[in-house]
Amino acid sequence: MSDNINRQVLVKKLPNGIPAEDDFEMGGSPIPDPVEGTFRARTLVLSLDPYIRAVMSGRHFYGAPQPGDVMRGRSVARVDASRHPQYREGDVVVMESGMQDYVISNGGDVHRADTGTAPVSTALGVLGMPGLTAYAALLGPAQIKEGETVVVSAASGAVGSMVGQIAKIKGCRAIGIVGSDDKSAWTETEAGFDACLNRKTDDLHARLTELASDGADIFFDNTGGEIQGLVMTKHLALNSRVILSGLITQYNLAESPPGPNLGNLCKMRTTVFGFVVYDFEHMRARFLTDAKRWYAEGKIKFKEDMTEGLETAPAQFSKLMHGNNFGKTLVKVAD
Amino acid sequence: MSDNINRQVLVKKLPNGIPAEDDFEMGGSPIPDPVEGTFRARTLVLSLDPYIRAVMSGRHFYGAPQPGDVMRGRSVARVDASRHPQYREGDVVVMESGMQDYVISNGGDVHRADTGTAPVSTALGVLGMPGLTAYAALLGPAQIKEGETVVVSAASGAVGSMVGQIAKIKGCRAIGIVGSDDKSAWTETEAGFDACLNRKTDDLHARLTELASDGADIFFDNTGGEIQGLVMTKHLALNSRVILSGLITQYNLAESPPGPNLGNLCKMRTTVFGFVVYDFEHMRARFLTDAKRWYAEGKIKFKEDMTEGLETAPAQFSKLMHGNNFGKTLVKVAD
Repeated sequence: MSDNINRQVLVKKLPNGIPAEDDFEMGGSPIPDPVEGTFRARTLVLSLDPYIRAVMSGRHFYGAPQPGDVMRGRSVARVDASRHPQYREGDVVVMESGMQDYVISNGGDVHRADTGTAPVSTALGVLGMPGLTAYAALLGPAQIKEGETVVVSAASGAVGSMVGQIAKIKGCRAIGIVGSDDKSAWTETEAGFDACLNRKTDDLHARLTELASDGADIFFDNTGGEIQGLVMTKHLALNSRVILSGLITQYNLAESPPGPNLGNLCKMRTTVFGFVVYDFEHMRARFLTDAKRWYAEGKIKFKEDMTEGLETAPAQFSKLMHGNNFGKTLVKVAD
Repeated sequence: MSDNINRQVLVKKLPNGIPAEDDFEMGGSPIPDPVEGTFRARTLVLSLDPYIRAVMSGRHFYGAPQPGDVMRGRSVARVDASRHPQYREGDVVVMESGMQDYVISNGGDVHRADTGTAPVSTALGVLGMPGLTAYAALLGPAQIKEGETVVVSAASGAVGSMVGQIAKIKGCRAIGIVGSDDKSAWTETEAGFDACLNRKTDDLHARLTELASDGADIFFDNTGGEIQGLVMTKHLALNSRVILSGLITQYNLAESPPGPNLGNLCKMRTTVFGFVVYDFEHMRARFLTDAKRWYAEGKIKFKEDMTEGLETAPAQFSKLMHGNNFGKTLVKVAD
C-alpha cells in the first residue's frame, strides 16, 4: 500500500515502433478520496492488451495520451471506499482503471466481475471482453454453423483461444495459427483445437491447403499482415465470413501497409465484417450465461501470462508487443 | 446473311495485358440446324463486358478459352428456328450466344428479353444483368436507406449509372467517379448524380472529403485499384457497406496487386460483400417490375457505345479494355 501513495505507470515518451520499458516511468500521487456519487477502487489485476498500442498512436477513439499521463488499462478492482449508490465496499468490478493502484469512478463503463466458478482474473480474459469478442463475432455476424471450418490467428491468446473453443463447442473444426511450438502444443492439447500451425516454422499455405481443402468458412483475424493476406486470397470457402478483429502486426507501424487483394472475396462471395466488441454489449448477459456454464463443464481452458507488481507493467507490455507473451497478459497488483 | 455461313469471332491467341484487336480473328462454320429440344437464334446485339477479360485469363468459372474457340459473349437474339417446346420463331431472348451470328440452344441460361417501353438493347444494360447487379446489391446486402451517401466507381457504365440512379430514386446522394470530363458531364447532367469526379484530373481525396464529409455509407466498387484503396481507407462512414462488384483495373494484369489496408474497416464497422450477380436471380422479376416502371417514368437514362457489324467486336472489346468506351459497350450484329 506504499504509504498512502497511489503508484502509477506514466507515459514518459510516445513510443516509436515497438514500445520499450523505458517509454514509461513510475510515478505517484496521493491516494484520492471519493466524493458523493463516486467510489474508489483498488486495482487487483491489470490487463495488458494490444489495443493499448493503438491508443498510444492516437488510432483509438480514446485519443492519444500525452507524456505524464497515466497509462490506460482495464483491470479487475475491488471497491474500497464508496459514496456511490450502486457500489459497496468489497464489490469486485471490471473497469477502465488505468495502470495505477487506485482510481475514482462515477460508475460509468464499470461492471461487476461475474466469473462463476472461474478465477476472477478471467473477467479480463476468456470470460471478459476478449471472450465476448469471440462469442459475439461468431454467433453474431459470422453466424457460425455446425460442421464449418474456422481458422483463427493469434490462437493461443484470450480472443483466439475462445474462438477455437467456441467453434469446437458448436461442432466446428478449429484451426489455429500461432508464433511458437509451445503455443501450438497448448492450443492443440489443452484448448482442443483440431490443429494449430506455427507461422514461423510451418508452410502455412501447404498446411492450410491440407487441413482446410475447401477453405475456411470463417476466418477470424486478430493479426493482419501476411496471415491475413494468405487466408483471404487463397484459403476462403464459398460464402465465407471474415471477422476483422485485430491488427497486432501493425499496431507498432507508423504507416499502414497495403492489405490483401480483394478479388478472391468476389469469387467466394465472402462477407467481411469490421468488428468492434463495444457494439455488442447487448450480448454480454447471454455470453456470460453460456461461458460460465461451459467453464463449469470443463470446456473452456485458458492460459495466463501474469507477472506480479505494478512496476512490472511496462516490461510486460513490451513483451506483449514483441509477441513473446503466452496467453492473456496480466499484472497482479494486489490481493 | 453471308451465304449460309455462321460468322464467328475466334480466339487467335490468349492476350498478354490489354487485349488487342489481333488477339482475335474472324472465322465461320455452316449455319447449324436445331435438333429436337433445341432452337436456333440469330444474334441481334452483342454485349461486350469486362468480365470477358477475366474469362480469358481463366479467372472466371466459365473456364479459359483455347485458341480457335468462339469468344464468349451475351446477346439479345431472335429465335429463327425452333424445335424447343418453350421458344417459338420470333421470340426475342437474352442468352450466352458467344460472338457469332447463330447459336443453337437447349434453353439453359436463356430468358426472354423483357424491357417494357425501353429499347431491346437495354436487356443487356440497365434493364439486364448490369442493372440487376446494381439493384440486387443495393436493395439486398447493402440495404440502402433514404438519406445515405453512395459512392460508385465507373459511374457512367451500365452498372455504375444504375447504382447512382437507383440511389437517387431511393432518396440518397449519388457521387460518381469516372475517367473523362465527357463521362462526368453525362453522369451529372443526364443520369442526375449529385456529383461525378474525373479520376484523371480531380483531386479525389480532396473532393470526396468535401462532397462526403461524413464518408460514404455505401461504396459500390467496380474498379479496384487506387480508387478502392482511397475510398476504403479514408472515405467510409460509420456502419458503411462496401460492394465489391468488379475489378476492371486488374483484369489485364498477370499478378494480383495488393489491396487496401483493412484497418479502417474495423474502425468504421464496415461490412464488405463480395458480390456476384448470378446469386441474385431470385430478384430478377422484382427488378424488372421496378426498372421498367422507372424507365417509363423517365427516371432511368442510359448511354450506349454501339458499333455495327460482328467484325467490329474485337476492336470494340479492346477499346472497352482500355477504358475508352463511354456507356454500355455493344455491337449491333443484325436487325
